[in-house]
Amino acid sequence: MNISRSLQCGHAERPIGIFDSGVGGLTVFKALRARLPGEHLLYLGDTARLPYGTKSAESVTRYALRAASHLAERGVKMLVIACNTASAIAMPVLVREFAPLPVIGVVEAGAEAAVRTSQSGHIAVLATESTVLGGAYERAIKALCPGARVFSQACSLFVALAEEGWIHGPLVEAVVREYLHPLLEEKKRDGLDCLVLGCTHFPLLKETIAQVAGAGVMLVDSGETVARAVEKLLAEQRLTLGQSTRGGARFLATDGVERFARVGSLFLGERLAAQDVERVDL
Amino acid sequence: MNISRSLQCGHAERPIGIFDSGVGGLTVFKALRARLPGEHLLYLGDTARLPYGTKSAESVTRYALRAASHLAERGVKMLVIACNTASAIAMPVLVREFAPLPVIGVVEAGAEAAVRTSQSGHIAVLATESTVLGGAYERAIKALCPGARVFSQACSLFVALAEEGWIHGPLVEAVVREYLHPLLEEKKRDGLDCLVLGCTHFPLLKETIAQVAGAGVMLVDSGETVARAVEKLLAEQRLTLGQSTRGGARFLATDGVERFARVGSLFLGERLAAQDVERVDL
Repeated sequence: MNISRSLQCGHAERPIGIFDSGVGGLTVFKALRARLPGEHLLYLGDTARLPYGTKSAESVTRYALRAASHLAERGVKMLVIACNTASAIAMPVLVREFAPLPVIGVVEAGAEAAVRTSQSGHIAVLATESTVLGGAYERAIKALCPGARVFSQACSLFVALAEEGWIHGPLVEAVVREYLHPLLEEKKRDGLDCLVLGCTHFPLLKETIAQVAGAGVMLVDSGETVARAVEKLLAEQRLTLGQSTRGGARFLATDGVERFARVGSLFLGERLAAQDVERVDL
Repeated sequence: MNISRSLQCGHAERPIGIFDSGVGGLTVFKALRARLPGEHLLYLGDTARLPYGTKSAESVTRYALRAASHLAERGVKMLVIACNTASAIAMPVLVREFAPLPVIGVVEAGAEAAVRTSQSGHIAVLATESTVLGGAYERAIKALCPGARVFSQACSLFVALAEEGWIHGPLVEAVVREYLHPLLEEKKRDGLDCLVLGCTHFPLLKETIAQVAGAGVMLVDSGETVARAVEKLLAEQRLTLGQSTRGGARFLATDGVERFARVGSLFLGERLAAQDVERVDL
């Protein structure tokens, strides 16, 4: 698609801006494209500054503001914060700074889905260190269901495993088992029945995580839940693009386009070529 | 120590500036302190931009220049590039930009030690993806020993393992075994006898790596080799500080000081408190 041409068209014609610290948000991109095939999508991966998951709240907020500004300047009709860490830390600032542009974050969408899914009200969140330390999932879940009990677990190695393409096999299972051990105790003792994949990298390890978590634990994948939230908000704001059009996609990255294309292909589940990615400086 | 006071003193009194993308370079810091206990050390970890290992050459060069400029402005008498990725990619630019300030990189020091250590001339380098792709170790080793054969292996997960503090046990051994598998084939077939730990995070996994590599493979740890190179260069340039003084240490980080102190303690092998670390913006 031609983004600049779309900007000259009506409001609904404008692309949905999706922002992530890197390629992980492509799992959200993929879910959005599946649910809203007519929409134009503009994806920005801040690969020069990734990962956000181990950075301070101050740095994450500064990076997120820069990335969102860039998408806003390109005339997006909505901002999707696909990065869990940015969503957990910077949402209030982003909503305030970019109003009236609608902003949707993975954390709120994930929390809603978790509350809908869990029967026992005992929910686990697997996320990066910063997301866990920030406690945003816990707050968002408890805001919707004050009686919920939330068990959070930082799984730092999952990001490296996903980027390495190591998503199956005994080694991956051993790492998953190591992180899920305390959570399995909670399941046994206390009826934990829902597990939120609170990092966009984690859906790649979904099968192994589901296998280790075992029967009786439902997984919430933020990609799908965000796509549903976006669809709803577009309809409410009359921003939905007619499904007769075929949506376009454009990818921006703040660091090397080769690596973005190579690792991004793993997350997208199809081949992405370096020439499809535009390098931008923020 | 008081750096600003030391700057008013003689040339030799000035601190040695050590720069890394994060806390990994503290293994180099530790080796320098052990070998040169009288020297003042000023360490800068560019934690806001880490890791460099998966970033493009252009970004790494830009980041390294900023970090080195900051240390130069603080009046260091020598620059030690403790980050393998920055050393592999940005050395020529750093040497040119900061001349006549002496600049020492881990790659050159590691290559020298490898050539000295290997009997067979068949050397393995374990490093980050960017360091391997850049081929700097291979070039540096072959410049010293044109007949050498160099086998490079990117070990992306080692960084996450070291930062998580997972350095022993069956899980770590399984990851190490996965990466070292092709290298062990080379050992069996072709007499590979030396293994360079080409990333400052890797010395934390040294015992497990040595165990998996087995007898007949010597490990080269860049910390120790850099410390020797620094000692030699200081003596040549008459910059050595009398060993009667007790050297001071100061730590700078571009992101959260709490995480720097916590993870840094693992690399330093002793407790580092957040109040010992100064936050700087680059």
